[in-house]
Amino acid sequence: MIIKWKSKKELKLSPFQLIVLLYLTGAVFSSILLLLPVAHKSGVDITFINAVFVAVSALSVTGLSPVNVADTFSTTGYFFIMLILQVGGVGIMTFSSMLWILFGKRIGIRERQLIMADQNRIDLNGLVKLMREIVLLILTIEAIGAIILGIYFTQYYPTLSESFLHGLFASISATTNGGFDITGASLLPFSNDYFVQFVNAILIILGAIGFPVLIEVKDFITYRGSKKYQFSLFTKITVTMYTILVIIGTAGIFFFERHHFFLNKMWHESLSYASFQSIAARSGGLTTMDLTDFSSPTLILLSILMFIGASPSSVGGGLRTTTVAIAVLSVFTFARGKNTIKIFNREVHPIDVHRSFVVVLTGTFIWGLSIMFMSYLEPDISLLPLLYEVSSAFGTTGSSLGITSHLDTPAKIILIVLMFIGRIGLFSLLFLIRGKEIKESYHYPKERILIG
Amino acid sequence: MIIKWKSKKELKLSPFQLIVLLYLTGAVFSSILLLLPVAHKSGVDITFINAVFVAVSALSVTGLSPVNVADTFSTTGYFFIMLILQVGGVGIMTFSSMLWILFGKRIGIRERQLIMADQNRIDLNGLVKLMREIVLLILTIEAIGAIILGIYFTQYYPTLSESFLHGLFASISATTNGGFDITGASLLPFSNDYFVQFVNAILIILGAIGFPVLIEVKDFITYRGSKKYQFSLFTKITVTMYTILVIIGTAGIFFFERHHFFLNKMWHESLSYASFQSIAARSGGLTTMDLTDFSSPTLILLSILMFIGASPSSVGGGLRTTTVAIAVLSVFTFARGKNTIKIFNREVHPIDVHRSFVVVLTGTFIWGLSIMFMSYLEPDISLLPLLYEVSSAFGTTGSSLGITSHLDTPAKIILIVLMFIGRIGLFSLLFLIRGKEIKESYHYPKERILIG
Ligand SMILES: [K+]
Ligand SMILES: [K+]
Repeated sequence: MIIKWKSKKELKLSPFQLIVLLYLTGAVFSSILLLLPVAHKSGVDITFINAVFVAVSALSVTGLSPVNVADTFSTTGYFFIMLILQVGGVGIMTFSSMLWILFGKRIGIRERQLIMADQNRIDLNGLVKLMREIVLLILTIEAIGAIILGIYFTQYYPTLSESFLHGLFASISATTNGGFDITGASLLPFSNDYFVQFVNAILIILGAIGFPVLIEVKDFITYRGSKKYQFSLFTKITVTMYTILVIIGTAGIFFFERHHFFLNKMWHESLSYASFQSIAARSGGLTTMDLTDFSSPTLILLSILMFIGASPSSVGGGLRTTTVAIAVLSVFTFARGKNTIKIFNREVHPIDVHRSFVVVLTGTFIWGLSIMFMSYLEPDISLLPLLYEVSSAFGTTGSSLGITSHLDTPAKIILIVLMFIGRIGLFSLLFLIRGKEIKESYHYPKERILIG
Repeated sequence: MIIKWKSKKELKLSPFQLIVLLYLTGAVFSSILLLLPVAHKSGVDITFINAVFVAVSALSVTGLSPVNVADTFSTTGYFFIMLILQVGGVGIMTFSSMLWILFGKRIGIRERQLIMADQNRIDLNGLVKLMREIVLLILTIEAIGAIILGIYFTQYYPTLSESFLHGLFASISATTNGGFDITGASLLPFSNDYFVQFVNAILIILGAIGFPVLIEVKDFITYRGSKKYQFSLFTKITVTMYTILVIIGTAGIFFFERHHFFLNKMWHESLSYASFQSIAARSGGLTTMDLTDFSSPTLILLSILMFIGASPSSVGGGLRTTTVAIAVLSVFTFARGKNTIKIFNREVHPIDVHRSFVVVLTGTFIWGLSIMFMSYLEPDISLLPLLYEVSSAFGTTGSSLGITSHLDTPAKIILIVLMFIGRIGLFSLLFLIRGKEIKESYHYPKERILIG
């Protein structure tokens, strides 16, 4: 792997191109793992495209699957999937960099840039320490989740090892926002067990809120008392936006379903369904119910929420919270006759505003185009499930209205590409095709034109 | 009316607020006209909401209608609709300003600003002349269209007066991109008559390409030979974008329908259907076929095209061609590592880039929200016809998959608001709520954040 890296360095690839190559390499290795006979239950076969689909779905921590994971894969297969989720969730870069550290090698400037691209980090300082912290933090969260769920699951499963297998898988799937399950029916067996839902929701949020947020909260707790701790603008914006989206989602589901799915439900049942689906839509993808029970407006709302996705530098995908937050703030700022976005006693940099717009626009374009071509490739599936599936793939959320297994190979390939883009992030992708910043040596006269 | 204006001036309303007030006044008067018994065929009644709907639809030159216009309205009613289309199409402002000129009053600076807002014009010079030119040009185009179609229609209709009534209505409906018909079935009676389709297509394009383009082309023809005529950046961009969109539309329809609706059609039939629907989607809204015969991807494509809409300062609606062109160019420029958009030996002003993004984002938000709430209000209608209807209203295109008459009043109100916004234009609407530009007296430190 180190030799490979060196040869890549000689090819003078940009960090972003290296990231994509690493993800592709990861996808190939993951596919091979899942194609191994030892990964399957005896007598169960999996087609090539389905193995690739599940591999990319796991590596991008999406959770969409054309096969029932519980019925298809063996316990070894479950561990393969957990491994791929870990690699994909915490970031191939973080993972391979950690390998370097474990093998005693010092991390170089080029590798630091690689991690920067993967996690969208802005400054280089303390990057090694940061990565180690991130990995340790995620592993700690997963371990605590696995122990709590493992112990709790003893009431559900006959043996201790089975309880802990389920606990471990559930914890990793929730924390990495992987969205996979080995129950065969997501969290439906726990639709009345608010404890399991609560633990899962917390794990999903911890994974999707963004690694820098976790680190800052940890620092805040550590430094408390010594001096006033200053959270970054990023943390403030992304936590606020994340919270607002969860509230909008919960309230929206409540409103749309109050005379429908929630008609004869107790208030706490409605609340648990609404809030869990809203949190899961951020990127977790697990579900406590059959989503086709929701009415169309709810499914449209969830599609939009999935499309927006989680925080940058998290295990989630989509447009990302900050992107949408800045774009929305910019519109409000403009409508109020101001030119700079002032928030939390800071000003947002104009470059970041421009970048947000570019990401939102490109994302919306890819989204619309994918839906149109999916509808061309799958004429028998109506628009709503396609919209939902495409949004779920782009947001690496992984919930579905049940069409994944019915899709033909071309449509599966579109979803594979979407999961890949959603996970890498559009901004990285744009930088990938962007190449070097070009110094402009000449200018034309400016001319105003009519807009909208 | 003049007295009213004066009292408004005392209220210190902004030009944009005045525009909206005038549109609202227009809507009220139009509704009253269409509610008059003399406007209806004998024995036919129209509900209040349907009259308002048709009035706003005509004033915003959309063409959506919950009733069959041919069966509901009398010949007097037809003339009322033609009048409303004229008022709405060429712009209430241009119209009332022309009234002022006709009544011998000189146009003041405040009224000039009003027209500026309505037509999105940037400089004040020669505005009176410009408006007169616009109105004259449109009337001339309509007259020529009416004469050509009137003479041609003698082979379709028994009497000369009926032929010319149909010719006049068709010409006005096409040129103003009104999309209404008195055939009872849009242009379906002429689905094999390429001459009628061609004339209609030309009239639709002349209306939707933008008034400044028409004026510049007229100037170009007038000044030819004297010196090299310089078209504005606006004209170059909007004509290019308009053409690209028509080509994308035609090619897309061809691709999606080649094994479907076009399966057993001759090449020239397919071409006529594809090109006419593509042109009509820009804002015209007339159709030569039953649109439900198209497959889902085609209808999604047409929805996107309608949502984009026509040129600013034209009879069309939607996001507008230049808005989308600049936003797309900006993404490409960014991806290529450059910071300024260079096109046609000019640079686009950064303010216009920002405005484009704001309009696209706000438009997409309103679009998505409308579809979600329409789906809530009309649970029995599936997503695709709702997407199509909402796009058609926002783009003031007026074609429909046939659901308009089945909608309840709340859904109709959403469409009325969308037609209104689509016609006024989002940029004007944003300026409306924007108020005065605020001079910023303080600044916070800038802080970078992670984006998508
Ligand atoms: K997921
Ligand atoms: K129209």
